[in-house]
Amino acid sequence: MTPTTTSQKDERKFEDARKAILERAALLICEQGYEGTSMQQIAVSCGLTKAGLYHYVESKEELLADIMGWGMDIFEEQVLTPVQGIEDPLLRLEECMRRNVLLCTRGWSREITVILHEHQTLRNAAGRTINARKKKYVAFLEQSFREAIARKLVRPEVDPTIAAFSFLGTVLWIYKWFRKDGRLTDEQVADGMVDTFFNGIRPLERSAR
Amino acid sequence: MTPTTTSQKDERKFEDARKAILERAALLICEQGYEGTSMQQIAVSCGLTKAGLYHYVESKEELLADIMGWGMDIFEEQVLTPVQGIEDPLLRLEECMRRNVLLCTRGWSREITVILHEHQTLRNAAGRTINARKKKYVAFLEQSFREAIARKLVRPEVDPTIAAFSFLGTVLWIYKWFRKDGRLTDEQVADGMVDTFFNGIRPLERSAR
Repeated sequence: MTPTTTSQKDERKFEDARKAILERAALLICEQGYEGTSMQQIAVSCGLTKAGLYHYVESKEELLADIMGWGMDIFEEQVLTPVQGIEDPLLRLEECMRRNVLLCTRGWSREITVILHEHQTLRNAAGRTINARKKKYVAFLEQSFREAIARKLVRPEVDPTIAAFSFLGTVLWIYKWFRKDGRLTDEQVADGMVDTFFNGIRPLERSAR
Repeated sequence: MTPTTTSQKDERKFEDARKAILERAALLICEQGYEGTSMQQIAVSCGLTKAGLYHYVESKEELLADIMGWGMDIFEEQVLTPVQGIEDPLLRLEECMRRNVLLCTRGWSREITVILHEHQTLRNAAGRTINARKKKYVAFLEQSFREAIARKLVRPEVDPTIAAFSFLGTVLWIYKWFRKDGRLTDEQVADGMVDTFFNGIRPLERSAR
C-alpha cells in the first residue's frame, strides 16, 4: 500500500469540502433558481466567507458546470461504464435501464439530477462538454437499439431514436414523482419499467419471458 | 349571430394582448430563469412601459401562474377533455398518448411546456391549483390503466402508477429532444410511442395488432 502523504490528505480534504459545497449550492439553486442565488448565499449556507468560497470555486458559472460535471461522473460510473461491455444489446439495455432507474431513486442528491436535466444556463465550453457527454449516452442507446434490431432481438418497426428517447423519458421522469416513502419500492419501479418497456419492443413471439 | 358589442371587442383585444405578454414572458423566463427576469425586461420585450405591463398583470407571480394556467387550459382542451368520453380504456389511453405527443410537438409555445413542467417556483394558492390540475391527469391515467387491467386489456402484472408515469415520462420528455426539422415527423413519433408502449402492457396473446 502506498503511504498517504500529507499532500494527498490535503487534496482529499479539499475535494471533500468542494463536494459539500457543490451539494449545498445545488440545493439553493434548485430552490431559488440559478439567477436568484448569489455566491454570498452559497458561502453563508456552507459556513464560509465569500473569500473562503472562492478558494474552492472560481465563479458561479464554474460552480454550476461542476455540479453538472459531477452528476455526469456519477452517472457514467454507475450506469454507462458498467454496461458497455455487455455483449447482448438487449441485456445491455435492460441492465442500463435498471441501473439508471436506481440512480434516479437512490442515495444521491436529487438536486444534482434536476440541475443536470433542467438547467440550460451554460452556453460556454463547459456547457458544450456536458451536452457532449449527454449526447454520448443517447448515441450509446441508439446504437444498442440498432444492434438489437439487426440481431432480431427487437422488432424491425421500432425506430432506434424513438426507442432511445422513450427509454430516457421513462427513466428520467422518475425524479419528478418517485418518493422513497411511497407505495412502490425503487426495485418495483425498475422491474416494472424494464418489463413493460422491453416487452413493447421485443418481437411478438419472444414477448413471453 | 349575436352582434359584437364594443365591450366584447375590448375584452377580446385585452385577452389577445395578455396572451402575447404571456408568450414573451415565457420566452424570457426560459432563457434567463424566473428570478433572473425582471418585470422591466418583460415590459421592454413587449414594447410596453412597466406601468403599461401592470395594466395586464398584477405581479410577476401572477404572470408565472397565468403562463402555467394557460398551458394547462390548452392541455385539457386538446388532450384530456376529448378523450375522457372514450369508453374503451385502452383506446382512451392510446388516443390520449397520441394527442399529448402532438401537443408537445405542434404549434404552441415550447417555452410554456418547459415552464409548466420545470418551474416549481409557485408555492402559493395558484401553485396548488396548477398541481391539482396536474394530479388530476395522473389520476385519470392511473384510473384508465386500472380499468384496462380489470377488463384484461392490460396484463395483470402491470402497475397502474408505474404505467401512468412511464406514459408521462415518454411523452413529456419529447419537448427536450424533438425538433421540427429533424429526421422524424411528429406523426412518426406519436405512432412509434403508441406502438411500443401499448405492446408492452397488452396481454401477450393480444400483442399482435
